[in-house]
Amino acid sequence: MNEPVLVVGAGLIGTSVGLAARAAGREVLIDDADRDRVRVAVAMGAGREWDGQGAPQLVVVAVPPAAVGRTCAQLLAQLPSCDVSHVCSVQSQPAHYLHGAGSDLARFVGSHPIAGREVSGPTAASADLFVGRPWAVCPVPGSGERAIARVVALAQACGAEPVVLPAGEHDELLATLSHTPQLVASALAATLTGVAADRARLAGTGFRDTTRLADSDPGMWGQIAAANAVHLARSLRAVAEPLRQLADLLDSADQAEVEAAIAELMGRGRRGRALLPGKHGRAAMSLSVVRCVVSDQPGTLARLFGDIATAGVNVEDFRVEHAPGSPVGVVALAVAPASKQALIDGLRAVGWTVTEGPEESL
Amino acid sequence: MNEPVLVVGAGLIGTSVGLAARAAGREVLIDDADRDRVRVAVAMGAGREWDGQGAPQLVVVAVPPAAVGRTCAQLLAQLPSCDVSHVCSVQSQPAHYLHGAGSDLARFVGSHPIAGREVSGPTAASADLFVGRPWAVCPVPGSGERAIARVVALAQACGAEPVVLPAGEHDELLATLSHTPQLVASALAATLTGVAADRARLAGTGFRDTTRLADSDPGMWGQIAAANAVHLARSLRAVAEPLRQLADLLDSADQAEVEAAIAELMGRGRRGRALLPGKHGRAAMSLSVVRCVVSDQPGTLARLFGDIATAGVNVEDFRVEHAPGSPVGVVALAVAPASKQALIDGLRAVGWTVTEGPEESL
Repeated sequence: MNEPVLVVGAGLIGTSVGLAARAAGREVLIDDADRDRVRVAVAMGAGREWDGQGAPQLVVVAVPPAAVGRTCAQLLAQLPSCDVSHVCSVQSQPAHYLHGAGSDLARFVGSHPIAGREVSGPTAASADLFVGRPWAVCPVPGSGERAIARVVALAQACGAEPVVLPAGEHDELLATLSHTPQLVASALAATLTGVAADRARLAGTGFRDTTRLADSDPGMWGQIAAANAVHLARSLRAVAEPLRQLADLLDSADQAEVEAAIAELMGRGRRGRALLPGKHGRAAMSLSVVRCVVSDQPGTLARLFGDIATAGVNVEDFRVEHAPGSPVGVVALAVAPASKQALIDGLRAVGWTVTEGPEESL
Repeated sequence: MNEPVLVVGAGLIGTSVGLAARAAGREVLIDDADRDRVRVAVAMGAGREWDGQGAPQLVVVAVPPAAVGRTCAQLLAQLPSCDVSHVCSVQSQPAHYLHGAGSDLARFVGSHPIAGREVSGPTAASADLFVGRPWAVCPVPGSGERAIARVVALAQACGAEPVVLPAGEHDELLATLSHTPQLVASALAATLTGVAADRARLAGTGFRDTTRLADSDPGMWGQIAAANAVHLARSLRAVAEPLRQLADLLDSADQAEVEAAIAELMGRGRRGRALLPGKHGRAAMSLSVVRCVVSDQPGTLARLFGDIATAGVNVEDFRVEHAPGSPVGVVALAVAPASKQALIDGLRAVGWTVTEGPEESL
């Protein structure tokens, strides 16, 4: 289907949809109440400015959460031959709005590409934002097959993997998978404001990784939270309550009880993590990790990955482990267990300082 | 100081201390109640088995937290010319034990290398575990200068950055920086156990990063928590309480109040994150991020980093962004803003699909 797409809202997601659809050869029209944002999106190559004419077949509403329902209702009324979708992090609230407004739901289906960034705005957009990511497509009662098919086709054109699921299930799931982690990361990072700046340097990679999401722009999170209040409240309590119980137990200072409670909580955490899919959606696979000391010089990584290629090894994942206070770092390389020895031998043979770890997922 | 070091406890940290000290040319003796672990550590090159003879000048106790105080007391009594330290995540409790036991505190100082892994045991050890990491050195009242100097020298020999601070301050800090993030990550990951396996694939990189620590071996965390109960209880409540308040506010469904509370919490989170040091201990610096689409083929990364070197650009940080369900991924490359255009031009010129983002910290 090579039908024109109208993107309404030229922020990070809308502009990225435009860039990705254009890259797939689709015609894209762009609209936004803020003409400056339209100009930026057009300049980036995300499509051409919509003049209210043209014949879009699918409209993608990419406006802030609180405005999604209203904007979809307007467009369903204004463009009676168009299917209308949106890309909002919350699905039930816009659907309720449209139901109440008496909109033509046969031409509507919600959607949500699961791809975000810690930054926002059209300049943060990229054509590859959705590559390989899930893209939830969320029919409401009455959603027509044509609308669903058009959104599925758009998601595929953007390189994403469409996953069709009901709006309510989406919202409950995203409260757990996205909205709660965001707020937990912020609450955890906020505790650092009570720490002297020269002591914060004792933070390790664990604190850093666990709080990375806290860099996010608060921007639309208030609207998202308010729109998904019931599921989010339950999901926040599912994290906060075990932590509060643990704090009470620590006050009682019964070592055996503390140890049992920690073992139980961490055991549940490990079982939860085991449900995450492995690389490329395959079942999680056990990888061997080889760690290589690198200097912070231009060309060092090129030499390292060149030597890895010479050793004939495919690296499944890698991560830089920072070395605060030192111009030296460590690159952790995850490879299939069968490739571990070839990698170690190949790198040592050409002078790299390499150590091996046991199997783990990076 | 090239004095023999006796490592008591051949787990991840003890064996890594042995490997790192040996790599720095120090003589290392190893002891462990479990002779199998000693044999593994010796085979890995972490030192030679201690026969109870020899003349160690410094003993490093690397046994489980609950046994640290007792073991230090025994060694202070058994080796009257030795200084004794340990590498425990908690400092005050062992110090209290030694005080109560009437040990010679002039020959004692606690310490704690801030370097961990999600895996444990001597086979997980590596000589570079401490490279560039902080290593807290925690004197107690009465700790002698010689003992402090010997531990500082050992930390430096292992490539770490010694940071001298009182035991109580260490424990309060680590509750915030390490113990609480561990348990928060577990509590968050545990919520996934209520999600169907085929839905867990909708988790994005945010959930994955925020819960990475939940893979940790529960192993000694119960002992650590019990030994740091007061600080940990306070720190856990500092995370749980704002989340619980937010849940209550969401129940009340006042959108303006929800948005204000989220903005406040996320604002505090961003201020906390800003206190984290940048790469190599420098002040955090703003980096430009360039994202490159890569295929999952051997040699792809070698070609990419080779082309980056040809462009004359030094990559400050990089991360693979997984592409579940697709044999394609994205490598996010963080570079100094002044290098961004050279990197984009250089990679595009040789055919890479590259998009630029705004400045951010990766």
